[in-house]
Amino acid sequence: MNHSELFWNIKNKSSFLCVGLDSEVEKIPSSLLKEKDPVFQFNKRIIDATQKYAIAYKPNVAFYECYGSKGWTTLELTVKYIKENYPEIFVIADAKRGDIGNTSKMYAKSFLENMPFDAITVAPYMGEDSVTPFLSYNDKWVVLLALTSNKGADDFQYHNEDGIRLFERVLTVSQKWGSINNMMYVVGATRAEMLKEIRRIVPEHFLLVPGVGAQGGSLEEVAKYGMNSKCGLLVNSSRGIIFADASEQFDRVAGEKAHEMQIEMEKYLSERNLI
Amino acid sequence: MNHSELFWNIKNKSSFLCVGLDSEVEKIPSSLLKEKDPVFQFNKRIIDATQKYAIAYKPNVAFYECYGSKGWTTLELTVKYIKENYPEIFVIADAKRGDIGNTSKMYAKSFLENMPFDAITVAPYMGEDSVTPFLSYNDKWVVLLALTSNKGADDFQYHNEDGIRLFERVLTVSQKWGSINNMMYVVGATRAEMLKEIRRIVPEHFLLVPGVGAQGGSLEEVAKYGMNSKCGLLVNSSRGIIFADASEQFDRVAGEKAHEMQIEMEKYLSERNLI
Repeated sequence: MNHSELFWNIKNKSSFLCVGLDSEVEKIPSSLLKEKDPVFQFNKRIIDATQKYAIAYKPNVAFYECYGSKGWTTLELTVKYIKENYPEIFVIADAKRGDIGNTSKMYAKSFLENMPFDAITVAPYMGEDSVTPFLSYNDKWVVLLALTSNKGADDFQYHNEDGIRLFERVLTVSQKWGSINNMMYVVGATRAEMLKEIRRIVPEHFLLVPGVGAQGGSLEEVAKYGMNSKCGLLVNSSRGIIFADASEQFDRVAGEKAHEMQIEMEKYLSERNLI
Repeated sequence: MNHSELFWNIKNKSSFLCVGLDSEVEKIPSSLLKEKDPVFQFNKRIIDATQKYAIAYKPNVAFYECYGSKGWTTLELTVKYIKENYPEIFVIADAKRGDIGNTSKMYAKSFLENMPFDAITVAPYMGEDSVTPFLSYNDKWVVLLALTSNKGADDFQYHNEDGIRLFERVLTVSQKWGSINNMMYVVGATRAEMLKEIRRIVPEHFLLVPGVGAQGGSLEEVAKYGMNSKCGLLVNSSRGIIFADASEQFDRVAGEKAHEMQIEMEKYLSERNLI
């Protein structure tokens, strides 16, 4: 999928919602626990109920990896289920990988070749040769960490050389490694006011924005400061949608929550005359 | 395992060798391919042949993850095999993880609870709350990336605020999160001259040093600039040992290569009167 196709999907659904599949087995309805693969059954029902309103899904790999080889199978089944049933939906492996070149190549193979993910989140600390192996696949994307939504972002991301903070250097330097068709950036919604400054450095790139909802970020502010002429945003919500209800009706409620966000998103897209 | 026990093991074996188990199926002897789990059989024979000379093993998770749930099983079997047969050996998951707090907690669970790893490598970009969940286990370690061995290290790790480079800030700030008993740092052997400066900031911590051998770093220089009064070094070699020979004799040759390194290490330990 390229930049134009992603924008086309956003217009088509009047949404820039990414649903985070951080599907902890401890939090899913107990009625599912009798299933052979409870987390996959949970994901399937969440996906079916929310897909009308979602542009993207983002399983966080940690929540699968912690169940070992079994969890890994659940992850494989989940991404396949999405791509087979809803091929237009963009699927991001939230894996935050990054290693020396020959190792990053193996990580890229795992997520972009062996599994049909469209994108993977990557940590920038090790620089160019740790990131570029992920960029060698057609129509696949790197989502590079720039300014994250957590408190610890303050420890290093604002480290300032001659007025250029580390996250700004990451944005500037990494633009040379890819293009607006295969690179996007993570910018936390909890730092929405920073989006204005970030848009000066990356006016055209898509931004993946976590932190709306449970982490306290505001969708309105994200749209205000971050939206560009091709929308340029994927806003993620995880717990606020998938764990909105713990009863047997969890999927219906998740669908309603996703719909609420889509309606708000439609408003912002419409105000900018993008739909 | 704590700092003193690690030093005791080093003295006992006159070695500070870490063997990297970057066991790509494409590179293992073809005779093993008929086995049910060729990579596990390869690892087992490498471990049995090198354990006399090794203080630590370091499977790089990328090389397992790329085979999906099957590869994950191989990783689980490998770490269990080491801890069951050679419990004194320190086993590091080279995973370079790091995410917001509740997610890092899941990664910590995967490697330090569900699997019996002693340590995991962590990327520092997301700061304190992305690292501390890994520090909540007794006798388990974080190995934090500081100055890596690859070319891309130049892109961000030297970013300089008022004379303090990013990797120095990582070393300084992160010392408050743990102690010399649960935190060590990755410093690439390809930057051995930097070890002198790094020792000014972290005189007592253990350093995990990759990049000797295939990547061009010198063991002599690493020992010269990096060794402290408790050795303070784990020097990793992967390809130079495990893929030294592709015949049916691969394990014997790997053992010889590990022994050669151990002999050189014994010399440096002896010169410092540590053994």
